[in-house]
Amino acid sequence: MLRSCVSRLRMLAVLGGPPGVAPLPAKDPWSPRRSFSSEVIHMDLSLPNPSWSEDMRLLFDQFMKKSEDGSWKHLPSYKSKFTQRTEDIKIYFPDAKLMKEKLSQAQLFPRSFEEGLGFEYAMFHNCVEDRTVCIFQGGPYLQGVPGFLHGGAIATMIDATLGMCAIVAIGFAMTASLNISFKRPIPLGSVVVINSQVDKVEGRKLFLSCNIRSVDEKTVYSEATSLFVKLDPKTRLT
Amino acid sequence: MLRSCVSRLRMLAVLGGPPGVAPLPAKDPWSPRRSFSSEVIHMDLSLPNPSWSEDMRLLFDQFMKKSEDGSWKHLPSYKSKFTQRTEDIKIYFPDAKLMKEKLSQAQLFPRSFEEGLGFEYAMFHNCVEDRTVCIFQGGPYLQGVPGFLHGGAIATMIDATLGMCAIVAIGFAMTASLNISFKRPIPLGSVVVINSQVDKVEGRKLFLSCNIRSVDEKTVYSEATSLFVKLDPKTRLT
Repeated sequence: MLRSCVSRLRMLAVLGGPPGVAPLPAKDPWSPRRSFSSEVIHMDLSLPNPSWSEDMRLLFDQFMKKSEDGSWKHLPSYKSKFTQRTEDIKIYFPDAKLMKEKLSQAQLFPRSFEEGLGFEYAMFHNCVEDRTVCIFQGGPYLQGVPGFLHGGAIATMIDATLGMCAIVAIGFAMTASLNISFKRPIPLGSVVVINSQVDKVEGRKLFLSCNIRSVDEKTVYSEATSLFVKLDPKTRLT
Repeated sequence: MLRSCVSRLRMLAVLGGPPGVAPLPAKDPWSPRRSFSSEVIHMDLSLPNPSWSEDMRLLFDQFMKKSEDGSWKHLPSYKSKFTQRTEDIKIYFPDAKLMKEKLSQAQLFPRSFEEGLGFEYAMFHNCVEDRTVCIFQGGPYLQGVPGFLHGGAIATMIDATLGMCAIVAIGFAMTASLNISFKRPIPLGSVVVINSQVDKVEGRKLFLSCNIRSVDEKTVYSEATSLFVKLDPKTRLT
């Protein structure tokens, strides 16, 4: 089981990684790195930065510690401009001219804010239990009702975490449905933990669920269920 | 019915407007304006800008034309830094020190991108049919699967549109649940129309639904249902 999980993670890395994860070197696919290519910056944005609160740093360190025996894996993520990968994505976006124009500026949505202003997060996958955990700190640009995160910002991190859990399980996949119950508002700047898991697999369909809890696990902020569908490389999306 | 709707919209303006809508002058609460206050910029971001495509401009003009007889109302929106309104929001965020620190940089999530990069949108409320329409152009920073909008970006605009529809109907409200069916991916840069409506009111609960269609209305991209709950000013959220 453990070997199978690591194998899936390595395969994703060789294929170029999930959306938002830039191509990684074959030798050590999960090590953080930075390249000053003129077009693509391979900077892992899921590592601690000065905007992270003490709670974020402590949680990150705890999960990195848990990753030492290989049962957990830290999942790096990038802005992914995709300019090196236009050939790969023609299958999903057949109008090459429009694609080039639109994608030249494209950035992964949850990674498109400056440091500390938007979504600060790191994800870890548990290879034994087949689940993904996201530690998340919501910045001041994610406001909805004054002082609290916008429902769309919460939905975004839920979708991103469930999506990563789905991708590790079955490869490239898209959200087909998302059902969220917002139980308590999340204050701006606070740190929460998103726990996601695969509930059922039916062919290309993957059923997942998650919850968002406070760091001390006492407060449940949101719960969600979702359906993801594996993308068929032979099928165009448009 | 028409008078009641306009009255509700005016009352919201006098109260300071819905989240993301800055306080408006009593004389003409719906006219666009700009003030160069050192702290709050009252610039209506739902007006056409150079990043808008021809489709966006045409749709905007069509809805502005429909607004001439008063049956539709253009709903302006702002980044809303809320620095003038800390007294008003203490009821929802009782820790005054933390509130001041967190809210000094706070921006309404869907308005926190630079022009053309994120959410470009304008909303109109139909006072006869009690429904809100949002015309939306998704910028390159909202990417999920390469070439398409992130599920979280779609959820954000759905939540924002349903939220505005709820606010016009019952006053300040928060999302309690959101159920989205993503039927087709939305290409980056395309323009879509979000049609939302109130389905049922039960005390403080408001049930709404919406769909996202292409400009020619032939393609249904997403459908959603939701429950919003009216906020009680006497109840603290934390």
